[in-house]
Amino acid sequence: MSRVLILSKHADEYRRLIEAAGLPGMEKLAAAASPSEALALGDDFDIVFGEPSLIPDVLSSLRNLRWVQATWAGVEPLLDPSLRRDYLLTNARGVFGGLMSEFVFGYLLQHERRMFERYRAQQEQRWDASLTGTLRGKTIGLLGVGSIGAALAGTARHFGMTVRGYTRASESCPDVDAYYHGSRLPDFAGGLDYLVSVLPDTQETRRIVDASLLGWLPAHAVFVNIGRGSVLDESALVTALRTGKLAAAILDVFEQEPLPPGHAFWHTPNLLITFHTSAPSFPGDLARLFIENYHRYVDGFTPLHAVDFEKGY
Amino acid sequence: MSRVLILSKHADEYRRLIEAAGLPGMEKLAAAASPSEALALGDDFDIVFGEPSLIPDVLSSLRNLRWVQATWAGVEPLLDPSLRRDYLLTNARGVFGGLMSEFVFGYLLQHERRMFERYRAQQEQRWDASLTGTLRGKTIGLLGVGSIGAALAGTARHFGMTVRGYTRASESCPDVDAYYHGSRLPDFAGGLDYLVSVLPDTQETRRIVDASLLGWLPAHAVFVNIGRGSVLDESALVTALRTGKLAAAILDVFEQEPLPPGHAFWHTPNLLITFHTSAPSFPGDLARLFIENYHRYVDGFTPLHAVDFEKGY
Repeated sequence: MSRVLILSKHADEYRRLIEAAGLPGMEKLAAAASPSEALALGDDFDIVFGEPSLIPDVLSSLRNLRWVQATWAGVEPLLDPSLRRDYLLTNARGVFGGLMSEFVFGYLLQHERRMFERYRAQQEQRWDASLTGTLRGKTIGLLGVGSIGAALAGTARHFGMTVRGYTRASESCPDVDAYYHGSRLPDFAGGLDYLVSVLPDTQETRRIVDASLLGWLPAHAVFVNIGRGSVLDESALVTALRTGKLAAAILDVFEQEPLPPGHAFWHTPNLLITFHTSAPSFPGDLARLFIENYHRYVDGFTPLHAVDFEKGY
Repeated sequence: MSRVLILSKHADEYRRLIEAAGLPGMEKLAAAASPSEALALGDDFDIVFGEPSLIPDVLSSLRNLRWVQATWAGVEPLLDPSLRRDYLLTNARGVFGGLMSEFVFGYLLQHERRMFERYRAQQEQRWDASLTGTLRGKTIGLLGVGSIGAALAGTARHFGMTVRGYTRASESCPDVDAYYHGSRLPDFAGGLDYLVSVLPDTQETRRIVDASLLGWLPAHAVFVNIGRGSVLDESALVTALRTGKLAAAILDVFEQEPLPPGHAFWHTPNLLITFHTSAPSFPGDLARLFIENYHRYVDGFTPLHAVDFEKGY
C-alpha cells in the first residue's frame, strides 16, 4: 500500500485530480502547499509528488521515501550533493515539449513578421507593406535534444526549416538533420539563423553560450533561451546585442529570477524578456503524468523519466 | 513555339529566373514592369505571366493570347465581366499555404502568449510571470478550405487544435475534423476560439462575416482575415470589438487598400493591422510555379490551378 504526499502550490487541485482517478493501492493521499504543512502531516510517505523547490526541506524526514515525481523538467534543487539520493527521482519530461514549441515558434514568427514594428506603424497610421520574412528554408540549431528539443525539431520541420542538434552523444531524434558533439560547437553554430538552448543546468553546460559561441553565429542570428539561465554568459550577450553582432535574443530564463531591478537586460536593445513563462505548468498535464507513473509503480515497473543524479537530468 | 510576356513589378527578376531554367520551345521572352511598357513590346504573345492588377490593360491587345499565369492567388481584376475570357487563366494556388500558415499561427501564438503585454511589462521593468495560454485543445474555424486552408489545418493539427471547416461543398482535407456547409454557419461558429477567413471575393462571400456571424462567436474569440476585405462587414467588427463581444481581430486585408487615413480600424481596440503582408510573393516561388506550368503547357497538359471564371477562383 502506498502513502502519497503532494507538496505543491497546486496541492489541492492535484489532490482533486488524483482522487478522481481512483488509483489502486493508495492508503493515504495528503496535500500540502509548504514544507511545514507537509511535516505536520506525518513522516511515513513513500511517494512524493511536487515542486523540486519545496521538497528538499522535507527530504531528510521521510524515513520510507522510495519515489519522488517532480512537477518540473529541471530538478536542480534536488541535486545538491548534501541531499540524500537513495530514492527514485522522476521529472516532468514529455509534458512541456508542445508548450515550449508554441513559445519558441511564436517568438520566431514574431521576429520574421516584425510584429512590434508593424504595430508601431499602425499606431502612427502608416501603411507598412514592407516585405516580411519566413521560417521556411532557415536553419535552427538546438542546444540539447531531449524531449523538448525533439518537439521543437518536429515543429521546425513542419515549417520547412533545417534542424541541427548539439548533444553530448544522443542522435535519436528523426527530425534533426545533422548532429554535432563535443568540440564541433563552431561548426554547429556557423550559419545558424536561430540558436535555441534547451540545456539543463549542469557542470558541463554552464556558460556554454559565451562570447565565442555568440561570435560564431551570423550577425542576423537570434538566440532563444528556454533551458536554464546559467548556460548563458549574460554580459557577453549584452555586448553582442549592443555591437550588432547578434540580431536579437528572447530570454525566458535567467541566472537570477525574478530578474533584479537595474539589470542590463531590462533595457538591452533587441532583447525580449518572457519571465519564465515559456512552458506553463497546467495541473492537468502533471497530474496525468503522475497517474501514469503511479500505475507503472504499483505494477512493479520503473516510472518514466528517471533522473540520473550524476548527469543532472 | 511560345512567345511569353512577363508583366510584373518583379519582371526583371522573373526573366532572369525563367531564362536560367532554359525552357524548351520559347521563341520570345519579354519583360515589362507596366502595361505601357508591355504594349510597346508587341501584341503577339500567347502566354502572359504577371500581376492580375496590370494585365487587364493589355488583355484586349493580345490577339494570340492562350494562357495567363497570375502571380496572385486572388485574380479579381481579371474577373470583371467586361474583360475577355477566351483564354486559360491559372492562379498561384499552392504557393502561399506555408507562408499564410506562418502568419496565422504567429499571430495566434502572439495572442496566446500576450507578447505585446509582456513587452510592456519589460519596458516598465516589471516581472510578469502571469499564466500564458496555449493553442493545444483550442478550436479553429476555417472559412474556406482550399490549398491555403488545408495548410492552416495541417499546422492547427500539429499544435493539437480541433479544426472546423466551412466550405461550399468540398470535404477533401484530412486535417479538418468537421465540415459545415450552407445554413450551418451558426453551428460552425459556436464555440470557436479562432475564426480565420481564407475566402476569395465572390458574390457569395461578400459580407459573410457580419454582425450575425460575429455574434455567434464566443466573446473570447479572435477573428483573422487573410482572404479578402470584402468578406467582412467592417463596421460590425468595430462594434463587436468596442463592446467586448469579440476579444481581438487580426486583419491583413481590407475593403480599401491601403487603409484610408481616419478609418476606424487604425484605432479600434484589440485590432491589429498587418498591411496585406501575410503571404509575401517571393519571386523564386512564383517563377518555379510558372516553370512547372510551362512544362505542362508545352507537353500538351493543362497547367495546374485553372481558375473557373464563374466561380471566381
